[in-house]
Amino acid sequence: MEYPPLVDIVKDQWPADVIARAQELQAEIGSVGAYSHSKGIPLIRKHVAQFISERDGYPSDPEDIFLTAGASAGVALLLNTLITPHKTGILIPIPQYPLYTATLAQFNGVAVPYHLSEIDGWSTSLDEIRAALKKAEISSSDITPRALVVINPGNPTGALLDQKTMDELVQLCEEHSLVLLADEVYQANLHRPAEHPFHSFKQTVRRLNSPVPLISFHSISKGVFGECGRRGGYFECCNIPADVRALLYKMVSVGLCPPLSGQVGVDCLVRPPKDGEPSHALWKRETDSIHAALAQRTQLMAARLNALPGVSCVNSPGALYLYPKLELPQGAVEAARKLGKEADTLYALELLEETGICVVPGSGFGQKEGEHHYRLTCLCPGVEEYVGMLEKFHLGFLKRYGDA
Amino acid sequence: MEYPPLVDIVKDQWPADVIARAQELQAEIGSVGAYSHSKGIPLIRKHVAQFISERDGYPSDPEDIFLTAGASAGVALLLNTLITPHKTGILIPIPQYPLYTATLAQFNGVAVPYHLSEIDGWSTSLDEIRAALKKAEISSSDITPRALVVINPGNPTGALLDQKTMDELVQLCEEHSLVLLADEVYQANLHRPAEHPFHSFKQTVRRLNSPVPLISFHSISKGVFGECGRRGGYFECCNIPADVRALLYKMVSVGLCPPLSGQVGVDCLVRPPKDGEPSHALWKRETDSIHAALAQRTQLMAARLNALPGVSCVNSPGALYLYPKLELPQGAVEAARKLGKEADTLYALELLEETGICVVPGSGFGQKEGEHHYRLTCLCPGVEEYVGMLEKFHLGFLKRYGDA
Repeated sequence: MEYPPLVDIVKDQWPADVIARAQELQAEIGSVGAYSHSKGIPLIRKHVAQFISERDGYPSDPEDIFLTAGASAGVALLLNTLITPHKTGILIPIPQYPLYTATLAQFNGVAVPYHLSEIDGWSTSLDEIRAALKKAEISSSDITPRALVVINPGNPTGALLDQKTMDELVQLCEEHSLVLLADEVYQANLHRPAEHPFHSFKQTVRRLNSPVPLISFHSISKGVFGECGRRGGYFECCNIPADVRALLYKMVSVGLCPPLSGQVGVDCLVRPPKDGEPSHALWKRETDSIHAALAQRTQLMAARLNALPGVSCVNSPGALYLYPKLELPQGAVEAARKLGKEADTLYALELLEETGICVVPGSGFGQKEGEHHYRLTCLCPGVEEYVGMLEKFHLGFLKRYGDA
Repeated sequence: MEYPPLVDIVKDQWPADVIARAQELQAEIGSVGAYSHSKGIPLIRKHVAQFISERDGYPSDPEDIFLTAGASAGVALLLNTLITPHKTGILIPIPQYPLYTATLAQFNGVAVPYHLSEIDGWSTSLDEIRAALKKAEISSSDITPRALVVINPGNPTGALLDQKTMDELVQLCEEHSLVLLADEVYQANLHRPAEHPFHSFKQTVRRLNSPVPLISFHSISKGVFGECGRRGGYFECCNIPADVRALLYKMVSVGLCPPLSGQVGVDCLVRPPKDGEPSHALWKRETDSIHAALAQRTQLMAARLNALPGVSCVNSPGALYLYPKLELPQGAVEAARKLGKEADTLYALELLEETGICVVPGSGFGQKEGEHHYRLTCLCPGVEEYVGMLEKFHLGFLKRYGDA
């Protein structure tokens, strides 16, 4: 018995532009079961370059694009490449998504932490970076700072960089001969884009006509897609010499190729349905409703958290998170110490136990000595009920450990 | 407009057991677009453990199974873990699939090469391994040999280890406190299984009741599947302490999870249709015909290559390759030297130019000084025409560069 190909079965039931896209990709790829080019399927890299050109208003070359198994695979590759057997320092923001510290540990690199400025809405402070560089220089060790990691929009902070700060960061990289690693995976998660728009570092570097070597990371795991299980993403090389790009190509070849289903996901990310195409209306309705829901939940949660005693919370303009600061009673700090834990870890564990809500304590992202935070995702529907449980728990926690 | 789910569209047109399997996996996984457990979906790891138990006759624990993005991702993880900042030596076969040398270079490990024995059908010689260990010990450097890589069935050689040699290899690892890394990705590619069966190292270690730490790798990229673009595979830990296994779990967590479509592929690999199920007949016909075609092509190509002047070729009992040895005329060696190339590279380039057939020169896999080989895959249909072109090219090459 023979079974008909999938496309023949669904072609009368699914939108014509979806079928046409699948057929175009199939003609190019052949089979998602076969290896592709180690940098990713050429046609999809061409589509990525078109997306970047249209986003930034500056050209992008498909040869500078590497498709990856999510942004994390790209970050690991770049850190691995940058770290030499000597003490290579990589400047990372604090708080930061722990991918960076974990990957640095894996490749024997040295994290050179710089603090983000909570009172300025978690903005990136040039002074903090300069202080971190100075500290690395004058410390007894022989650390060579080689790259600056910037996460924009921020994880876990949800902050967005303004254009002036971005210009200064590029200039700082020039002054200190640093490679700029721009983690821009949340670029489509903007809650108040008129007030806080996203600018790419690629656009900034090109506008300033800067020679700074830049690698920008993007992913299908965030945005309105969230297709994280497919493991798709890309990075773009900007001002990277051809021999270094060839070395990166050699290194990705060892792992054969990125997962094909992730590559196809990247094609969908960079080439959404166009106005007039049959699937556009459904795509737009879905996309708009996800953006609106995230913005509304983030706003509501920030307002309600800020109304709680001992909680202050930057109202994130982007990403998927809030990162509230907690003023915890001394009793909680001491109870946590007895358990060998940070007070925000105790808070998170009790919250999980009591409500089933899972948050990540600030100690997992790094924070200043004596401070306490946690990261809260804004993805969960039923936000009223959810925040109600958080409020009730928080007041109970203060009472349980409070000095009053 | 709403579109019906795929399963509703195809359920009357595809075999019932295929639909039932998809529904079972979907109930477990939810969505292939979401992250899974970092070690892989628990149900699929359970199926892998059942497959291993049935294959070997010894139990396997799902907690010892890690699903990976192809075997190469697992190999990279283990080499990364084994290599410390000191000079960690990893024993690798020569010739070898260059994944090993490339990954060792990436993580600053030291390759400790041991030669396979071509006159014994590319078998693994204990004496060669002992000689390599001795050489590493007495060299001026302070290399610490930590692991032994064995590729069985071999790539590029297609050799299969016999049980006696496997027992001795396990004992050697015991004596020298080596971790055994068993690359068994070609375990289903057996051309003469009655004469040359596959035994797993897991079975060998358990039968000998050996304490040797063993990691075995398998993949969906080979066998009769060849679903390499999905990036699926697994490794099993045997005699690995719980704290080391926990560390491996921590390390894979940094990359979030293996690609879901590769994980689903692993489930299909370890749980083929059973006799009596609707899709069994088609599966068996496909599988049998692929096995038979590979065996027949390998046999025919080996016989025809061996009939050529200056070519000798082990008739591989497994994997997807032949690895013929070439006696090349001095004229070719000199012409290659002038171009800064090895003579087998010159041979491969001219073969590609003249016939369109792409082979990998032996210098890419490692070989003894002055020897020449190339690796030929046995996957191509139309083998008569293909071998005819090879023969014609070879005779022309000898004439072009020959002393006669």
